[in-house]
Parts: sequence; structure tokens; C-alpha cells
Amino acid sequence: MMSITKAFVLSLSGLAFATLAHAQSADHSGAIKARQAHMTLYGTNLGVLGAMAQGNMPYDAEAATAAAESLVALAGIDERFYWPEGSASGMAEGTRAMEAIWADPEGFSAAQEALLVAATAMAATAGTGVEGIQAGMQAMGGACGACHQNYRVRQ
Amino acid sequence: MMSITKAFVLSLSGLAFATLAHAQSADHSGAIKARQAHMTLYGTNLGVLGAMAQGNMPYDAEAATAAAESLVALAGIDERFYWPEGSASGMAEGTRAMEAIWADPEGFSAAQEALLVAATAMAATAGTGVEGIQAGMQAMGGACGACHQNYRVRQ
Repeated sequence: MMSITKAFVLSLSGLAFATLAHAQSADHSGAIKARQAHMTLYGTNLGVLGAMAQGNMPYDAEAATAAAESLVALAGIDERFYWPEGSASGMAEGTRAMEAIWADPEGFSAAQEALLVAATAMAATAGTGVEGIQAGMQAMGGACGACHQNYRVRQ
Repeated sequence: MMSITKAFVLSLSGLAFATLAHAQSADHSGAIKARQAHMTLYGTNLGVLGAMAQGNMPYDAEAATAAAESLVALAGIDERFYWPEGSASGMAEGTRAMEAIWADPEGFSAAQEALLVAATAMAATAGTGVEGIQAGMQAMGGACGACHQNYRVRQ
């Protein structure tokens, strides 16, 4: 048991250097992968709610609430390890993160907070019916769009 | 504003079909991507704690606690959209998920619950010092390893 744990900790030790987020390191691929993974999970749960809102998936109150609560959990996660200095578009490969994220940290935090507020509202209404999802989706769309508009390079 | 929201919902509608998790669909790539994204985020936060536990990163109580609390949030997320029937290794591409996940749902849920318990313990001690991380890491390693041993195909 101890040796499994030791091996586990040792394997994590390598992972940390691959994953993190040191200003002094030029390789930010781990941090970029982490923030994109986080976005993937927003998409998974928003995809469920969007499909129900559009009538492309049968409405299921429990599943809708689960998806909305996952959005709340995700939006509440501390992202400090995702955004190392030097990992903006133009500085690192494979990212559309704008330099405004680092130039305007308060604005970026406020945009994240707005997403948490919208997700919390969605969690309160998603279980009440399709209309509850549709109402919640407007605020989610606004929060997602506002952050992407200000902090993500257009494709 | 309304048209932005509409475009957003429409884009999500397509996403849902790409992302999800229908037993009747052969394409489970979205669900597989979601569960792997979730694992990536475990890795990001465990990587921080592992590096501090090993002395490869300076101990920072606030960052350690943030990482541990992210693990708690992640471990508490409902994974119902990640594991559609037919998305086991041998049935779908690019996954090491064992059929045991579907054959033994209670065991799989218990393994996830054990991870949440371990993460919660880590969050309680990670801010107390390197020893607190090291203690928490043993339980985390046990929970990760037990689930991988029973539900993930060996490489």
C-alpha cells in the first residue's frame, strides 16, 4: 500500500511539471490543456441543457438539474493554476486566450463570477421545466459570450 | 442580445449531439472526451499537491487548499453524462474504461464516493503544512489506484 502511494506521489511529481504554470517555464501546455478541459466540461453540461431547451432531447428534470449543478461546481472552481503569465495567444501555442486576461484581472474575475451567478440561477430553475432551462440559458449565454468577447481571440 | 442567446442555444444544440451519450448512438467520443477532461483536471490539482509534497514546489497553504478544494468540487460532480452504455474499451475508440463500470455500477459509485471522501480529507489538511498534504495524498492515491485497478484497462 505504501509503495503504491509512493509511486503515485512520484508520478504526480512529474505531472506537476508537465501540468503547471510556472512563469519561468516556457511550456504552458499543461495549463492550457487544463483550461480547455474545463471548457469541455462546460460544453458537456451546457450541451445537455441546450438540447433539452431545443426539444432535441426529452426533458428530464433530474438530469437537467444535475447538469446545472455541475455548471455551478465548475464555475466555482479556483482557476489560479490555469492562467500562468506568458500563456496568452501569441506567446504560447494552441490557445486563444487574450492578453487582456492578465492585463485586466479584475474584469476577468468579474466575468467568471458572472458565470457562477448565471449557473446558480440555472440550477434553481432547470428542474422546473423546459421554460426554466430556456430562461436560465439566456443568462448563461450572456455570461459565456461576454467573457469570450473580451478575453478570447476570435477564430 | 436575444439573437446572441439564440445563436448560443443553437450552437449548444449541435454540441449536445456531439457531446452526448446516447445508447442509440455509436459515437461516444464526446462522452469519452468529457471524462478524460475531468481526469485532466484531477491531474492538474493533484500535480500541484504532489509537487508540494515532494518539495518540488514551495509550500503555499492557500494554493494547496485551493487545489484540494478543486478536487472536492470535481469529485462531487455528477458523472451521469460521461458513461453511456457502449463506451467501454473494445466498444469505442480511445478509452480504457472497463466493462466493469457498467456491470458493477454500485462498485463504481462507491469508488467515486471514496475519492470524494479522500479529497475532502485532503482539503481539511492541505492548508496545515506539507505533512498535511502528504497525509492526504496517501488516501488520494488509494482512492485513485483502487478505481483504476478495477475499472481501467492496464496500459
